[in-house]
Amino acid sequence: MKINELRAILEKNKLDFALFYNLGMETNPNMFYFSGYNGLGALVIPKKHKPFLIVPEMEFQKAKKSMVRQVYSMDKKRFFESIFATLKKNNIKSKKIAIDNNNFTLNSYKHFKKQFKKSRTNDIALECLKLRQIKTMKEIKTIKKAFNYGNKILNKTIKNFKDFKKESEVAAFLEYETKKLGLMLSFPPIVASGNNSSIPHYELGNVKLKKGFCVIDFGVKYNGYCTDITRTIYLGKINNKEKQIYNFLLDIQKNIIKKIKINGNCGKIYEDCVKRLKDYSKYFIHGLGHGVGVEIHELPNLTLKSKDKIVGNMIFTIEPGIYIPRKFGIRIEDTVLMGKKLNVLTKVAKDLLIV
Amino acid sequence: MKINELRAILEKNKLDFALFYNLGMETNPNMFYFSGYNGLGALVIPKKHKPFLIVPEMEFQKAKKSMVRQVYSMDKKRFFESIFATLKKNNIKSKKIAIDNNNFTLNSYKHFKKQFKKSRTNDIALECLKLRQIKTMKEIKTIKKAFNYGNKILNKTIKNFKDFKKESEVAAFLEYETKKLGLMLSFPPIVASGNNSSIPHYELGNVKLKKGFCVIDFGVKYNGYCTDITRTIYLGKINNKEKQIYNFLLDIQKNIIKKIKINGNCGKIYEDCVKRLKDYSKYFIHGLGHGVGVEIHELPNLTLKSKDKIVGNMIFTIEPGIYIPRKFGIRIEDTVLMGKKLNVLTKVAKDLLIV
Repeated sequence: MKINELRAILEKNKLDFALFYNLGMETNPNMFYFSGYNGLGALVIPKKHKPFLIVPEMEFQKAKKSMVRQVYSMDKKRFFESIFATLKKNNIKSKKIAIDNNNFTLNSYKHFKKQFKKSRTNDIALECLKLRQIKTMKEIKTIKKAFNYGNKILNKTIKNFKDFKKESEVAAFLEYETKKLGLMLSFPPIVASGNNSSIPHYELGNVKLKKGFCVIDFGVKYNGYCTDITRTIYLGKINNKEKQIYNFLLDIQKNIIKKIKINGNCGKIYEDCVKRLKDYSKYFIHGLGHGVGVEIHELPNLTLKSKDKIVGNMIFTIEPGIYIPRKFGIRIEDTVLMGKKLNVLTKVAKDLLIV
Repeated sequence: MKINELRAILEKNKLDFALFYNLGMETNPNMFYFSGYNGLGALVIPKKHKPFLIVPEMEFQKAKKSMVRQVYSMDKKRFFESIFATLKKNNIKSKKIAIDNNNFTLNSYKHFKKQFKKSRTNDIALECLKLRQIKTMKEIKTIKKAFNYGNKILNKTIKNFKDFKKESEVAAFLEYETKKLGLMLSFPPIVASGNNSSIPHYELGNVKLKKGFCVIDFGVKYNGYCTDITRTIYLGKINNKEKQIYNFLLDIQKNIIKKIKINGNCGKIYEDCVKRLKDYSKYFIHGLGHGVGVEIHELPNLTLKSKDKIVGNMIFTIEPGIYIPRKFGIRIEDTVLMGKKLNVLTKVAKDLLIV
């Protein structure tokens, strides 16, 4: 995606090439974004030459299936030594190199510097995030498909809720349905029942579903793109106060979504939410939303003092929450696409469901 | 774990404290290892004072459940600003700070340096990996439990293999059984059938199981500790040549395990495997094994030229493989514990299973 836009950044800053790498179990989001490859190795995007991958022998076949035509197998040398040699062989200058400081460790930098002694580096992490926050038509098509899958799975899970006895059974079902379709998860699902729901990033256990609110936060990954949704349902007999709080939060969430417009200031949208929450705002202990794409958390940030602006073809979440310590929590999260009008991509009912 | 050993490292190198942090979706392995906490935030282990965590408000309850007694909630300031202020408040010097260069990005370092202007840093990544490679009795107990779960799930999956039509269904079943027990996965399972098995890190799809060898690589995570096992089974009618290759590899794997001893040199164990593979060694395109613990890949490294030595209470894999490009692949992986004798922790039959 957006290789030409990246090249324009290289051109503007007089950078010879961009270098992304992945040495661990995780995907490097920029490497994947620009190449479609998510294995071990390095991606080089020169200002003028064609992009290429340098990968360990065991990843060669996989790399060959990516969008990048030229793939080199690393010889037995060290990682950055192989990259240096391949650049030299291809007569590519390395005076000034674009790197991504968010995905470059101090340790890798040390090894990098041993080879690229005379090179200078420029951090283009923010530029990459800014490219990625505005989705292409191709990405939007992929992401819509991803949400179709995600919606279907969560709807099925909620429909079957009476069958589940434990938090872990709900999560197991979500994962089973995801994997059966050949998809990945965006993150380990959260299923937080009873007072566990008061912990926003609760880690579920092999424990019985408790009565009360139950927060379900779930996302799939389809062709490398994430989805994100949270629904809160109620198990057992609800009292009026709890019902009121749920509907209070739901109204706020709906109103915020209704008011989102191109050019909107993300910090102000967050502030608006805090204002609407009134006395409950002290129980709202995380950001209001975040971009979603090849990473589950991207730009824009809908947080306090954020200066990000809403731009066409951004995809981001709106997820206000109320967490009363040790008692209960409620979070209602949709992911929206800022098209000509606002599209809500998450299609799972939000009215309070009592199971 | 091993806080005292870490303190000895601080003492020896005249370091005031060790600083670990996690700002993303992933766990910082050292932060988890020394604190039992795997959420967002920072862990400070001073040379003399008690360790403490500094976490965002939304993680406070979770952090309170960790092994660390003292937990501070971050105020609205920036991340490293909060850490700096908390250290100051506690009168902890920060002249020389231990950090983990493997889990410290260039971007974080920039923000860190803005606060800790006068501090010097020492990389203790390797020291931490070396502490972690030798397991404590408590860890061994946990890891044995983890393998009990992992073995049970894989045995059940293989027993039910006739029910599966697609690669994704096998993976879905593995995940479902894992999650139902309230466990996590160590990594997304690999289920690679037919010629897909020739790709060691194949990413499975929503595709029919092909005839031929089928590589299944799977691990659970129990209380933060990983397991790792690979079995290769055969779907359909096998020919003599294929049977021979499987048994050839199996014999090698068994013989390598038999010969492992305290003080063994890991590079030599790898070389021994290459020698035994004879003409097939060119199709063995990854390391022979790796340590397993809070990370799925740890020390020791059983790779070419590795100087690591086998020491008591190490836990590591032995996983030779043969991958004929575009045709088929076979990998047989066990995880072993170097106790008084060698313990094979993976208890799933290895004799060729034809389904």
